[in-house]
Amino acid sequence: MKEITGGITAAKGFAANGIHCGLKKQKPDFALIYSKTPCTAAAVFTTNLVKAAPVKLSQKNMANGKIQAIIANSGNANACNADGMEKAQIMADLAAKKLDINADDVLVASTGVIGQTLDVSPMVSGIDELAGGLSEDGSAAACAAIMTTDTFAKEAAAELEIGGKPVRIGGITKGSGMIKPNMATMLGFVTTDCKISAEMLQKAIKSATDETFNMISVDGDTSTNDTFAVLANGEAGNEEITAMNEDYAVFLEGLIYVSRQLSKMMAKDGEGATKVLVCKVEKADTLENARLTAKGVICSNLFKAAMFGEDANWGRVLCAIGYSGAQVNPEKIDVSFETEKGRIDVCKGGFGVAFSEEKASEVLSADEINILVSLNSGNEGAEAYGCDLTYNYVKINGDYRS
Amino acid sequence: MKEITGGITAAKGFAANGIHCGLKKQKPDFALIYSKTPCTAAAVFTTNLVKAAPVKLSQKNMANGKIQAIIANSGNANACNADGMEKAQIMADLAAKKLDINADDVLVASTGVIGQTLDVSPMVSGIDELAGGLSEDGSAAACAAIMTTDTFAKEAAAELEIGGKPVRIGGITKGSGMIKPNMATMLGFVTTDCKISAEMLQKAIKSATDETFNMISVDGDTSTNDTFAVLANGEAGNEEITAMNEDYAVFLEGLIYVSRQLSKMMAKDGEGATKVLVCKVEKADTLENARLTAKGVICSNLFKAAMFGEDANWGRVLCAIGYSGAQVNPEKIDVSFETEKGRIDVCKGGFGVAFSEEKASEVLSADEINILVSLNSGNEGAEAYGCDLTYNYVKINGDYRS
Repeated sequence: MKEITGGITAAKGFAANGIHCGLKKQKPDFALIYSKTPCTAAAVFTTNLVKAAPVKLSQKNMANGKIQAIIANSGNANACNADGMEKAQIMADLAAKKLDINADDVLVASTGVIGQTLDVSPMVSGIDELAGGLSEDGSAAACAAIMTTDTFAKEAAAELEIGGKPVRIGGITKGSGMIKPNMATMLGFVTTDCKISAEMLQKAIKSATDETFNMISVDGDTSTNDTFAVLANGEAGNEEITAMNEDYAVFLEGLIYVSRQLSKMMAKDGEGATKVLVCKVEKADTLENARLTAKGVICSNLFKAAMFGEDANWGRVLCAIGYSGAQVNPEKIDVSFETEKGRIDVCKGGFGVAFSEEKASEVLSADEINILVSLNSGNEGAEAYGCDLTYNYVKINGDYRS
Repeated sequence: MKEITGGITAAKGFAANGIHCGLKKQKPDFALIYSKTPCTAAAVFTTNLVKAAPVKLSQKNMANGKIQAIIANSGNANACNADGMEKAQIMADLAAKKLDINADDVLVASTGVIGQTLDVSPMVSGIDELAGGLSEDGSAAACAAIMTTDTFAKEAAAELEIGGKPVRIGGITKGSGMIKPNMATMLGFVTTDCKISAEMLQKAIKSATDETFNMISVDGDTSTNDTFAVLANGEAGNEEITAMNEDYAVFLEGLIYVSRQLSKMMAKDGEGATKVLVCKVEKADTLENARLTAKGVICSNLFKAAMFGEDANWGRVLCAIGYSGAQVNPEKIDVSFETEKGRIDVCKGGFGVAFSEEKASEVLSADEINILVSLNSGNEGAEAYGCDLTYNYVKINGDYRS
């Protein structure tokens, strides 16, 4: 497997575009992703009971495992609006008509403010330009058009070999706030030219999400609009993957790789973040306890604020593990902080060990901090990704709507 | 029932004191609460798997339902220390010897930094002064000595009548960060001269905690040291409460009243808080759904940041309800904001209603904001208390240890 460029259009047969249509004042706000040939598709959606209209429509359209295009807007979440379903359908119809496909083969996604009526007229006016500009180099444009408070574009792609054929997987995401572990997360779209059944694709997306997008936390809030979808058009010409065989394993590895790259970028770009936090848990008795532990640490406001302050307050790591829901023996826990500037061991067997505060400050001054947790109870491990809690998180979210 | 002064020493037969012994640089850090006669006692402790040594010792000492004194320190949590149990026992022994009671009739509580060895020598040196100054007017001194980042003292008391006898209930708490719903919370101590069995007292403390302390959120972190204890010495001379009769109901009402006053003060004094948030949920189908809904709103970082910004971003209220775990029908939810400056209805039946942003800003400029949520599905209700998320929360917690 090798990393390649091209994002959502890295795979054969996919085109994308993104433009400014007028939902936002100046920035790109309208995106389209399209496969020339029909795709099998799979997706995971928000578990929030309050689901945006585009999520409900996409769940319906996704039911038969077929999607050929994704239409998305930023600037308005189209959630909690009385006419939300109608507006989401208009978006699907716009794409379908322009691309000459069925409206129920379109996935619709929206992101932005909740509870404000979505004005579709800028999209009605903009669809010609958007579809007209579809390009095999259009990933960056599409990615820019789904960004909200993101400060940089998030694209990743990889090439692998399945049955002697080169297969490509690539994607884009938008992230920042409202990224909660244990759910789909954000908007994320991945395309692949792999030939794979809808059933196997659904299995793969679930596994990849559990290991990557579900292990990120920025602020612990789960959005009304979270959507992660994968489209596979089979253009690579490999023998179709219809079982959990070796080909499936190779494909899953690629999907996890791309998803992890995108996840880390999202953690790095958490609202107001100055540091990336990676909690690496090892020697857990079960995978679930490993994941709960890693997520618990990454989600603690107190710990996140301590990392912003470059304060080696490891007691907050233990405290967070203790209420994470993981079944652990506190008196077996070791904790270390590790960065490019060095490593300090701060806790052994649940108790503090002496360390140099000076060295701790030096280690924690790095931009990416690994929190190493050993539960000393087995052989399972997990990683979770997050960021520090900063003044700017509060600033960004104190007046998001204006 | 009437509100009275006197805090933890409002009830007959209780004395308290607090001094600076030297665990902190200058501020009071060592407290003692004492009943001249034996008490029945009940307590709730943290559910965090990582429990501080004083919590473990107190759970043991509380097992027989008898406690006659509380010894507490601030500045050091005595959590995650290899010699923690030994140090906690030394604290119990200090109080017992000085007061001539059994060491297992002492409740021990510590609050402060986790994982730093507790130096007991300042307490050994200070116990004479602390015990010598025990006074029926000592509530404020004891309260000051358990404060950490609290900016004001939290005392409350009430007088009620049981079987023709005046009965008093009063208490003190320390709060600020790390206050998580669904658990005991913070340090909180209540005394009463009511005569009540340990069994009934345990029932009462559980009910009161569920309605009050468990409905607060400052930052969603659950501490290693959370303790809430009630001591009852029976000096009021009422007939002992041994069943859930009318006397019990009157006592419980009083305990809830005092606990609610203390809870609201803790929410108001959340780290960095500029506004108190009270989420009042009505017309829920079950009490559990009412509570989950209220807590979900109060715990959302995104919503808390919006309130700091005085931004009527009600979509975040719906979003938080949606992932709160409450089983609700989103399309029946009404939301309004209400303060001393007026009221605005922002959501009806799950969808936004038009409102004046100008009026919204005016309403939200108040220091206390009620978030009114109607689920329109039944007759149950609940209230939860919290505060906004501010720059200062991050500042306070970014460098807590120095």
